[in-house]
Amino acid sequence: MRVGVLTGGGDCPGLNAVIRAVVRKGVKTHGFEFVGYRDGWKGPLEGITMELGIEQCRGILPRGGTILGSSRTNPFKIDGGVERIQENLAKDGVDALVAIGGEDTLGVATKLADLGVDVVGVPKTIDNDLSGTDFTFGFDTAVNIATEAIDRLHTTAESHHRVLVVEVMGRHAGWIALHSGLAGGANIVLIPEQPFDIEEVCSLVESRFESRYSPILVVSEGAIPKEGGDMTLVSQELDAFGHVRLGGIGDRIAKEIEDRTGKEARAVVLGHIQRGGTPTAFDRWLATRFGLAAIDAVATKNFGTMMALRGTKIEQVPLIEGTGELKLVSPEEYAEAQVFFG
Amino acid sequence: MRVGVLTGGGDCPGLNAVIRAVVRKGVKTHGFEFVGYRDGWKGPLEGITMELGIEQCRGILPRGGTILGSSRTNPFKIDGGVERIQENLAKDGVDALVAIGGEDTLGVATKLADLGVDVVGVPKTIDNDLSGTDFTFGFDTAVNIATEAIDRLHTTAESHHRVLVVEVMGRHAGWIALHSGLAGGANIVLIPEQPFDIEEVCSLVESRFESRYSPILVVSEGAIPKEGGDMTLVSQELDAFGHVRLGGIGDRIAKEIEDRTGKEARAVVLGHIQRGGTPTAFDRWLATRFGLAAIDAVATKNFGTMMALRGTKIEQVPLIEGTGELKLVSPEEYAEAQVFFG
Amino acid sequence: MRVGVLTGGGDCPGLNAVIRAVVRKGVKTHGFEFVGYRDGWKGPLEGITMELGIEQCRGILPRGGTILGSSRTNPFKIDGGVERIQENLAKDGVDALVAIGGEDTLGVATKLADLGVDVVGVPKTIDNDLSGTDFTFGFDTAVNIATEAIDRLHTTAESHHRVLVVEVMGRHAGWIALHSGLAGGANIVLIPEQPFDIEEVCSLVESRFESRYSPILVVSEGAIPKEGGDMTLVSQELDAFGHVRLGGIGDRIAKEIEDRTGKEARAVVLGHIQRGGTPTAFDRWLATRFGLAAIDAVATKNFGTMMALRGTKIEQVPLIEGTGELKLVSPEEYAEAQVFFG
Amino acid sequence: MRVGVLTGGGDCPGLNAVIRAVVRKGVKTHGFEFVGYRDGWKGPLEGITMELGIEQCRGILPRGGTILGSSRTNPFKIDGGVERIQENLAKDGVDALVAIGGEDTLGVATKLADLGVDVVGVPKTIDNDLSGTDFTFGFDTAVNIATEAIDRLHTTAESHHRVLVVEVMGRHAGWIALHSGLAGGANIVLIPEQPFDIEEVCSLVESRFESRYSPILVVSEGAIPKEGGDMTLVSQELDAFGHVRLGGIGDRIAKEIEDRTGKEARAVVLGHIQRGGTPTAFDRWLATRFGLAAIDAVATKNFGTMMALRGTKIEQVPLIEGTGELKLVSPEEYAEAQVFFG
Repeated sequence: MRVGVLTGGGDCPGLNAVIRAVVRKGVKTHGFEFVGYRDGWKGPLEGITMELGIEQCRGILPRGGTILGSSRTNPFKIDGGVERIQENLAKDGVDALVAIGGEDTLGVATKLADLGVDVVGVPKTIDNDLSGTDFTFGFDTAVNIATEAIDRLHTTAESHHRVLVVEVMGRHAGWIALHSGLAGGANIVLIPEQPFDIEEVCSLVESRFESRYSPILVVSEGAIPKEGGDMTLVSQELDAFGHVRLGGIGDRIAKEIEDRTGKEARAVVLGHIQRGGTPTAFDRWLATRFGLAAIDAVATKNFGTMMALRGTKIEQVPLIEGTGELKLVSPEEYAEAQVFFG
Repeated sequence: MRVGVLTGGGDCPGLNAVIRAVVRKGVKTHGFEFVGYRDGWKGPLEGITMELGIEQCRGILPRGGTILGSSRTNPFKIDGGVERIQENLAKDGVDALVAIGGEDTLGVATKLADLGVDVVGVPKTIDNDLSGTDFTFGFDTAVNIATEAIDRLHTTAESHHRVLVVEVMGRHAGWIALHSGLAGGANIVLIPEQPFDIEEVCSLVESRFESRYSPILVVSEGAIPKEGGDMTLVSQELDAFGHVRLGGIGDRIAKEIEDRTGKEARAVVLGHIQRGGTPTAFDRWLATRFGLAAIDAVATKNFGTMMALRGTKIEQVPLIEGTGELKLVSPEEYAEAQVFFG
Repeated sequence: MRVGVLTGGGDCPGLNAVIRAVVRKGVKTHGFEFVGYRDGWKGPLEGITMELGIEQCRGILPRGGTILGSSRTNPFKIDGGVERIQENLAKDGVDALVAIGGEDTLGVATKLADLGVDVVGVPKTIDNDLSGTDFTFGFDTAVNIATEAIDRLHTTAESHHRVLVVEVMGRHAGWIALHSGLAGGANIVLIPEQPFDIEEVCSLVESRFESRYSPILVVSEGAIPKEGGDMTLVSQELDAFGHVRLGGIGDRIAKEIEDRTGKEARAVVLGHIQRGGTPTAFDRWLATRFGLAAIDAVATKNFGTMMALRGTKIEQVPLIEGTGELKLVSPEEYAEAQVFFG
Repeated sequence: MRVGVLTGGGDCPGLNAVIRAVVRKGVKTHGFEFVGYRDGWKGPLEGITMELGIEQCRGILPRGGTILGSSRTNPFKIDGGVERIQENLAKDGVDALVAIGGEDTLGVATKLADLGVDVVGVPKTIDNDLSGTDFTFGFDTAVNIATEAIDRLHTTAESHHRVLVVEVMGRHAGWIALHSGLAGGANIVLIPEQPFDIEEVCSLVESRFESRYSPILVVSEGAIPKEGGDMTLVSQELDAFGHVRLGGIGDRIAKEIEDRTGKEARAVVLGHIQRGGTPTAFDRWLATRFGLAAIDAVATKNFGTMMALRGTKIEQVPLIEGTGELKLVSPEEYAEAQVFFG
């Protein structure tokens, strides 16, 4: 049996661990051969392959990124894209495909499965917002990096009696903000699921200062103000080039707090350091077990499935479970954390 | 309501996070008062208390150890111990007790609950071998520290063509060895649940060298040779003081490998650095949620229970579930990892 | 003898280590008493003190920030400021002052010394741009944090064939950029001392891609384009609020590269995480030794001096040496690194 | 010009950074070709080479160990060894040699230089005990790892009212113990240069407990008791195999303290994790600059020299300066730290 492997979407610590586990168990237990497709769906679309065997997977376990490269190419948005993929898989003698990726990548996999391609999916999102699995790999690494940053910022906040706003990843879901905010002892956590009232935020900031402590806010990049809420345009600073200097939601909230409370506020945007570099032990373990289960699914021809963590077990669930709906922070989970805020 | 809190047994990253969550939610949501008992069961036994409120819990979230101190005192092994505990709880006006600890501490809690003490348990073991919960806090920190050590040792092994044996915690269960071995890309993992054959180990070592790579072994402190296995007394080195120089199982296995294969082998015993210091984000999150659930159990008078992680939920399960039986690595879980060994 | 201690300016890992060393040796060796002044020069200006003895210094060695607080208050810019400081020192019975801070704080110290105040300075700048000392504490921590971030970004750059721009601290001097760029294996380093030509930068970016690798740029926050250089206003993106979204020099350079080369480019601005949190071992060692030397300078009445690292020795040099002129990256030092760029 | 490169002795974080800098500058600036010799002096002795160019050096900067391998082979202890090296250098067309290593490796280099081999040395010792240079690379990494371990152990010591003994590297010199002890806030530091009196150590331990704190000792592996001092054979514990369980000096001191003070004491032996894995930013910077200077020395035919850090400059000093005499901790340097002990 010949198995193709590809990784799609934004990079995520643990991708290489999945690839290594898929290949190693595929070769040693099942006697499979492998074809590495480069740069996500672009690989099978354009027929760009690389050699993929146990040798290529040596030493990659602790490395971030993906040795296969990645892209956001979507064959369904390209004329004749699906047909070209099917042709290339046939040409390469590929019997089954392991697709490692997030909502988009697995969405393509789901549609290809419907068209008869033998595909198995491994869920990947740093944001942890895929349904059907307790956790996705990469998330634990991101949360640890954000938590370490918050740990570091506490002393700066205290020493300067200053508000610090930490912007973390999470466009639609607040998991990274909620977990790192809880773990880092943040005083306010703002997430996309719960639009915020800037006036409430400012009174929390002020009450925190009254108790002699400096507040730290953790904010998802996708956090939004309540409709009708008064988050007006702040006075626009100019930088050395005479340009407006204004960033994303973190910068905006910091500016609003300064304007409204008179307290110095600074934003730190963690950005890509949350998704690069070596994975935590948890992410390596989870990614490895996803990979082992994925190649077992191929061997048992349980196609159209996606690997999922349920408790401490890896289960093979229908692909549609992962791509159907985003997993969001529930009001109860957000409420649970409130006792630490303010 | 007045609630006593104590921590027993070996220390474990996350203990302070539990205490903080218990106190913070107890005070802010339920209006409880707290009594801190020092040094495990010794505290209520000898009536040694400390003030415990929101103020005492400031800044302790990222800190290892326990602000309450710990001990291995067992009141059931002391004449009149149980009666003295009941008297002291009464004297201190304590209505309910939150006991944070492992098998022994929760074992005492279970017996006290049977005697009518209103007690709620929070499971704690760095070894992750308590039944009834998917994970215990502290384990993730230990696994990460062991994994980082293994990462570091890979380059030493390669550069010197040398066998490295890493001894990690785990007296009865191999969870730390298995997870860190998988995450660190170890070549052999030996755990208490699966007695090893030293000759098999040596042939794996030799076959690894044949493929030009240097082997890394991860060994639980409780790993044992197969009965009848030939792990004879090795020639005893003398140190600078003329004394025999021989350590635990890690050192012994290294020595055996040297004697049997002629390859240089060194052991590294990670010891207490696995259980001290700041917890990972996962452990802070889990410990915090255990603490929140524990004080809720007190508030709803759901006594005789222990907090447990099931998937992503915290549940309140009977104390006996955690203390009845050790959770061991199953043969299937051990077998799953074999594809990476050798 | 009663000694006042204050910390001024931006916070910097190692401040607490200096305070601890000053106090501990002052009490144990010289029998001094201490007065802690809060928030930099604001403390002696407004007579805001805190108790400062061995007890207050327990456990602060690994902690970032400063237990004394900090500010940018300059008594020379306040009517009667100097007189009020002299009065408060007299009122508090303070015989000598240890001032820990950067250019501004030590500049005030220098002027006060001229007016007869018995003061000893400890140099502090995360930017490492104070003359007279080989290194300042805090710098090594900042460089390590920046280097770890660059390490993490390499895999992201490779996996996405993307340019990554890392903006680090350094308003006037490029030390952090140069050291972390060298240590992190960056492909281009831009520093304030060497105005850059954006077209040259873009051709380096393109030639890097030609050799199949994705470039990482490290940029000091104070880096500037060559005069007459063509760094025109880039098309201004709007964010979700309809506001211009444009940050500092890092964001601008990323945008220019995208516009000019057609390659995706992203900026990461490390900001305050470079200056908060626990110091590296080097910074704790240097800060501790600065503190020991400072209190020895007080004991020997060698006032008007500043502590300086020369090789592995701590020397007491005239305050003016540290505050006279900034220490900048020389053309030779920048040229030395060029062999790794491009 | 063809240049041979080799690395000898124990591994040390930063070796790969030296190799990369030597090769990169050699190729790009000087147009040299390179021959990699494998496993220290064994390489030129037995004619074992590997390809070495810019390509082989990609990605190695952050990696521990050495891509060239290492050994302790000494050609002067082998009949005809020197002649065979000279023959192999001639056969490989090697005009000059860069030898990276410690006392032994550079000792061989010194003798070969005397015999007319054109050699340049780069000093390497994790112990920092080579004369002629302020610091050697690898030392900063070792000190940081030891300091992090001490940080972690503080909370364990406190929570259990227990003595913790940390054994660090340093056979002849106490630099790692002294620096990490200072940086980690240890209470007692024992180094080879200052034989200890176990009774004094025990009274320091007891006085520490009297002030409610638990002591942490940092001990060099080469620390020795004072002659005539009473460090008698402790009662020998048996392990599960019926064997004596006794380790190095750390274990012995812990046992003595338990026996003499009745306090629980545990030893942690850091071992090889101090010398493996990714180097700190300082070590990468220093190693890189040593490499650049070494190839410049080759280019200017300044043979028989060794690179040395003096302040912030790299200087080329006679090889004999590095190999003549060990650099030890002076009594003054040890005394300086005493104020933190006890």
